[in-house]
Amino acid sequence: MTPGRFITLEGGEGAGKTTAAEQVSAWLEQHGRQVVRTREPGGTAAAEEVRRILLDPATGELEPMTELLLMFAARAENLAQIIRPALNAGQDVLCDRFTDASRAYQGGGRRLGIQMVDRLAAIVHPDLEPDLTLLLDVPVTVGLERVRQRGGPADRFERSRADFLERMRAAYLARARMEPERIVLIDASQSLPAVRASIFRALEARLQ
Amino acid sequence: MTPGRFITLEGGEGAGKTTAAEQVSAWLEQHGRQVVRTREPGGTAAAEEVRRILLDPATGELEPMTELLLMFAARAENLAQIIRPALNAGQDVLCDRFTDASRAYQGGGRRLGIQMVDRLAAIVHPDLEPDLTLLLDVPVTVGLERVRQRGGPADRFERSRADFLERMRAAYLARARMEPERIVLIDASQSLPAVRASIFRALEARLQ
Repeated sequence: MTPGRFITLEGGEGAGKTTAAEQVSAWLEQHGRQVVRTREPGGTAAAEEVRRILLDPATGELEPMTELLLMFAARAENLAQIIRPALNAGQDVLCDRFTDASRAYQGGGRRLGIQMVDRLAAIVHPDLEPDLTLLLDVPVTVGLERVRQRGGPADRFERSRADFLERMRAAYLARARMEPERIVLIDASQSLPAVRASIFRALEARLQ
Repeated sequence: MTPGRFITLEGGEGAGKTTAAEQVSAWLEQHGRQVVRTREPGGTAAAEEVRRILLDPATGELEPMTELLLMFAARAENLAQIIRPALNAGQDVLCDRFTDASRAYQGGGRRLGIQMVDRLAAIVHPDLEPDLTLLLDVPVTVGLERVRQRGGPADRFERSRADFLERMRAAYLARARMEPERIVLIDASQSLPAVRASIFRALEARLQ
């Protein structure tokens, strides 16, 4: 049995990850793969409790280090309960955000630095990196406008100041330049059909 | 202004930390000190939310690494919001459990190893250790009997199996042997007046 592939979706607020997840999942299933979908922070009951603390605007300000440790706490649970068992069983795993999001949001946005995130990654998943990461990139203003049009209450991160979101985006783009073999940059400011076509091209190039 | 002293109380379930905290706090105030009391996990609103996840029996089993990261997440918040500001203002801080508890419960009890706890301590508080730690030691069976007699619902840790609690106790005692200058071992299986006398002797010897 071949082990499953670990695929992550990354991007800022309003980048279109939910739609992209449907498309990636459908493509994998059309290619005969079983797909387990999960998300971060979250994925298990305890990790979803941590997600609530992290995303609820009522939580208010958290220390950047607290935020980072809570993200990795949820990640440790998701890895042990969902991600590793599925990969070991030969299933593909599609995860909505992973450690690149910590690099971008806490390392870049909250200014903890990428090295701090990497130290925690070396503790929590020294042996595992995604096989493929699709980074959906949109300008901050475009993403925020999409979040606004989608309606509903904004979470703690969607309410962030623009300068935080700009640092987050810059950290994502810097990571994509550092790891071009793993991370495919998708221009998510294109039309929906054009984004979908870009995603399928990436999957065909990297996973077939 | 002299900086405050950072004093921690450690011990297993039913060791008598609550009573000891009252005695330590009273002794410090009698000696003219302002005392800020806090506890771990907890101390701030967000950290108390994390405490609820950690202690609620409804949470069920957590990955040992998840438990450790949640402990340090609460700790990062407590350090930044309560402990460091008080010490910097010249107040003494009395904290009910700190990183020694992570060494004992997650390092020893959950078998993550002391080194793993030390790696996180080096990330979260590289520059700060307690000035004095009182370790209240009782045999596991004595502590559990006290918890039972106290009544009320038992939390996630109080429900732990005896072998977990024995590993926890052994890790505490090993740490006390490693750091005799910082950690004072108190035989908490003595009578209450004898425990109190031991605590006062330790404070007089180490803090005057």
